[in-house]
Amino acid sequence: MNIVALAGGVGGAKLVDGFAQLLPPGNLTIIVNTGDDFVHFGLYICPDLDTVCYTLAGLANPETGWGRLNETFTTLENIKTLGGPDWFRIGDKDLATHLERSRRLHEGQLLSQITQGFCQAWGVKHLILPMSNQPVRTLVDTIEYGELSFQEYFVHHNCEPTVKSIRFAGIGSARPAPGVLDAIKKADAIVICPSNPWLSIDPILALMNLRYSLSSKMVVAVSPIISGKTVKGPAAKIFKDMGISPSALAVSLHYNNLLSGFLLDSLDADSAKEFSIPVRITNTLMKTHDDRRQLAEDVLNLIQTLNVF
Amino acid sequence: MNIVALAGGVGGAKLVDGFAQLLPPGNLTIIVNTGDDFVHFGLYICPDLDTVCYTLAGLANPETGWGRLNETFTTLENIKTLGGPDWFRIGDKDLATHLERSRRLHEGQLLSQITQGFCQAWGVKHLILPMSNQPVRTLVDTIEYGELSFQEYFVHHNCEPTVKSIRFAGIGSARPAPGVLDAIKKADAIVICPSNPWLSIDPILALMNLRYSLSSKMVVAVSPIISGKTVKGPAAKIFKDMGISPSALAVSLHYNNLLSGFLLDSLDADSAKEFSIPVRITNTLMKTHDDRRQLAEDVLNLIQTLNVF
Repeated sequence: MNIVALAGGVGGAKLVDGFAQLLPPGNLTIIVNTGDDFVHFGLYICPDLDTVCYTLAGLANPETGWGRLNETFTTLENIKTLGGPDWFRIGDKDLATHLERSRRLHEGQLLSQITQGFCQAWGVKHLILPMSNQPVRTLVDTIEYGELSFQEYFVHHNCEPTVKSIRFAGIGSARPAPGVLDAIKKADAIVICPSNPWLSIDPILALMNLRYSLSSKMVVAVSPIISGKTVKGPAAKIFKDMGISPSALAVSLHYNNLLSGFLLDSLDADSAKEFSIPVRITNTLMKTHDDRRQLAEDVLNLIQTLNVF
Repeated sequence: MNIVALAGGVGGAKLVDGFAQLLPPGNLTIIVNTGDDFVHFGLYICPDLDTVCYTLAGLANPETGWGRLNETFTTLENIKTLGGPDWFRIGDKDLATHLERSRRLHEGQLLSQITQGFCQAWGVKHLILPMSNQPVRTLVDTIEYGELSFQEYFVHHNCEPTVKSIRFAGIGSARPAPGVLDAIKKADAIVICPSNPWLSIDPILALMNLRYSLSSKMVVAVSPIISGKTVKGPAAKIFKDMGISPSALAVSLHYNNLLSGFLLDSLDADSAKEFSIPVRITNTLMKTHDDRRQLAEDVLNLIQTLNVF
């Protein structure tokens, strides 16, 4: 089965790791949100792309889900001594990624090429594509501070400000990265990972021709919300800020008529009857490496079941 | 006594450290070459300025004379894994300096302000000034490779190409940094440190109004050449490339009519009679912390002797 996964950061990376345990490299393409990308200390940083790459490379910190395994923070500590900003926790290993990526971008390489080069160096066999080679910037309009850049909202303000609306600056002129539309065309199914619908998946779906390319495809989504809460990140809070009660059902409605099927956690089994599309009830909380594979298997099973109809 | 020291990297930093052991902060200003500055990975790097600051802060690596004490190279090792350039040995602690300096430059701060801020954070009490806030780039024209940037010549090619000529791009529009001309005006004497005359001191002397400001001043120099060789770096080799036999005398002639006195190593005592200016014969090889103070004392003694005349 040929699968395309749309992914944000930690939750997406975990499910994608499950797929990578099951599918050969040729049968899995991962399209990653770049709306969170930002420039810090003059360096081009791609948090979601790095989380997905580090995870598949076995280099991710298993405690946090992001950042590098056995990371040190010597540079950051010395920046702090100088009175520089330390709100974004860049580790020494992670820093190498940002430095070398920035160097190559300045040289004229495309983000998708650079990502391919990095994956090769790290031994990642499955294809990971940034959603676009053109910059898209997620901007969060808040009641308390007005419009904030994603990292200001997410890291600096710890997701505390109340979200009024979200927009993706640059989305009008950003094109899907080379290979993205082609991978979707060839896919048997598209999987929307348990990532933040507002901040991680919407930027991908908002890309030129992207949503249209999905219209003839089977698309299934995994809920990032369990019992009205998110495992990590502000998805549930943003639903509330937007006046919507956070739930698996709310996630499926967010994706509107895009979905052919949905996976929700067994803790939300009661809500299954409220769905108008086929659902699969399973364990969506990926605590272990095996949980990741198990959830990926459940997704593939649902897709196979839907294929029968 | 009010002293201004003109300094390059390691040799200059050592003598300046000797002065810092003898003179109170108000009586010593150090003007540092910035012709070696360059941009690497998008970061603004000031090798000489950092060497002088690290040395006075007690943060310099005593083995190499440059770089940081107890340095680690985690980021550089990870850049190498990605296939990135590792010819310039940036350590993790050192990297913090380049990142925070670049961030402040992008914010609009001047190099001299940033240097003051860093010195304060590091507890350096003596005033260290970059020679200029405007970029000056030392370019080395070589027989083998044509014109090379300083770092390409110095680090990448290990000073092996034969030097035809040296020029300082940007020197015409670079002004001495705020405080430089004022410090010279107030100084009782100017000390040219045992730095590379061609690469470290000439860029300072080539600055607009700089040489003129020295014309009414007592200027003494310490030879960076002992027995026809340099302790570190390519000074002796460049003299040869230029068709001049490298010696303490050649250094003093290089500075032409600028000097009132000169300090040469006891190994070169025989050449003392060839000088047309007063000389002091001493130990110029600064192996220990005490050697630095001793040489600085010798310089101050020579200045006092010259003052009597």
